[in-house]
Amino acid sequence: MAVSSRSGPVRSEAARQAILQAAIEMLAERGYDHLAIEGIASRAGVGKQTIYRWWKSKSAIIAEALLEGMILGERLEVPDTGDVRRDLTTWLHAVGEVLLSSQGEGLVRSLIAAATDNADVGQRLRDAIAGSGSGALSTRLAAAIGSEPHLPEGAPIDDIAEALVGALLLRALSRSPLDDHAIAALVAVAVGPPRA
Amino acid sequence: MAVSSRSGPVRSEAARQAILQAAIEMLAERGYDHLAIEGIASRAGVGKQTIYRWWKSKSAIIAEALLEGMILGERLEVPDTGDVRRDLTTWLHAVGEVLLSSQGEGLVRSLIAAATDNADVGQRLRDAIAGSGSGALSTRLAAAIGSEPHLPEGAPIDDIAEALVGALLLRALSRSPLDDHAIAALVAVAVGPPRA
Repeated sequence: MAVSSRSGPVRSEAARQAILQAAIEMLAERGYDHLAIEGIASRAGVGKQTIYRWWKSKSAIIAEALLEGMILGERLEVPDTGDVRRDLTTWLHAVGEVLLSSQGEGLVRSLIAAATDNADVGQRLRDAIAGSGSGALSTRLAAAIGSEPHLPEGAPIDDIAEALVGALLLRALSRSPLDDHAIAALVAVAVGPPRA
Repeated sequence: MAVSSRSGPVRSEAARQAILQAAIEMLAERGYDHLAIEGIASRAGVGKQTIYRWWKSKSAIIAEALLEGMILGERLEVPDTGDVRRDLTTWLHAVGEVLLSSQGEGLVRSLIAAATDNADVGQRLRDAIAGSGSGALSTRLAAAIGSEPHLPEGAPIDDIAEALVGALLLRALSRSPLDDHAIAALVAVAVGPPRA
């Protein structure tokens, strides 16, 4: 949905969308290190000044695209079948497919690189993976309070969610696969060892 | 310990050390994004070709410095007083001081940025924080097997250690403080909720 520079003046919202879309495409194609404001402007059909009027850096553009769900959006909801171990296993398989696939892995590393520039990206990356509201990892863990010895009243739900997301990012950084064994171990980290 | 370029030919090991040292200093001073082979060569008093003979990228130099303990070395041993909750709390305070101090935070973000370029750096960053052998996080958790309901025989020690390290990196990325509350929560993630 690039806006042609020959189509005349565009409305701000269309330009904003075109810029975000161009940034996402180029992030996926070439990675964060090789992403440049000039290239984004050219693909979006806007001038560099237009971008600098709204964002102060490339990482700020990525943060906004993450916030709007244009990257990693809507694919990572945790199901709730009543069986928290099964639900986390299902979710981790889905996360593994999105984040640690050969394509997604490069994207996630690019997002992590953007996060090292910009704390907003770090927070939004965490939120994009762990979510908020219904379907979020914390919400699912909260619903399981009392059902497992490791999840008593007052268990540190948000920190468990953060540790899981951190472990996933560390796997993306070290190119470790998220196989069945790793998934079972992460479930045990979150809700305690399987009952004998 | 820069080697002067006017001192004539230097022995390989001295040059290697000078290059690693220059890379570490410049990483701390300006961050990973602004680190350049040319600048490292100049500070170390060697030619760019000398660097490219041994390393194929700046991230490979950082990986080697991490491996040799020249970055994050020897400061993160987990004590063993017999009380795993107290030991993890002590360790997390020490880690917080090193990693999430205003200086260390920038360094850790730089290391994470290097890791997005180079999986070796990711693995070595994890090893530098979680350690190996005696004093390592996994070793300390393994010694606590059987002492907590959350750490039965067969508990996924390495994955618990990885989740903790991941949570710490995520905090560095999002500039979240590692305060007493966060430390207590991470201890609960690792070894289960405090006993009533």
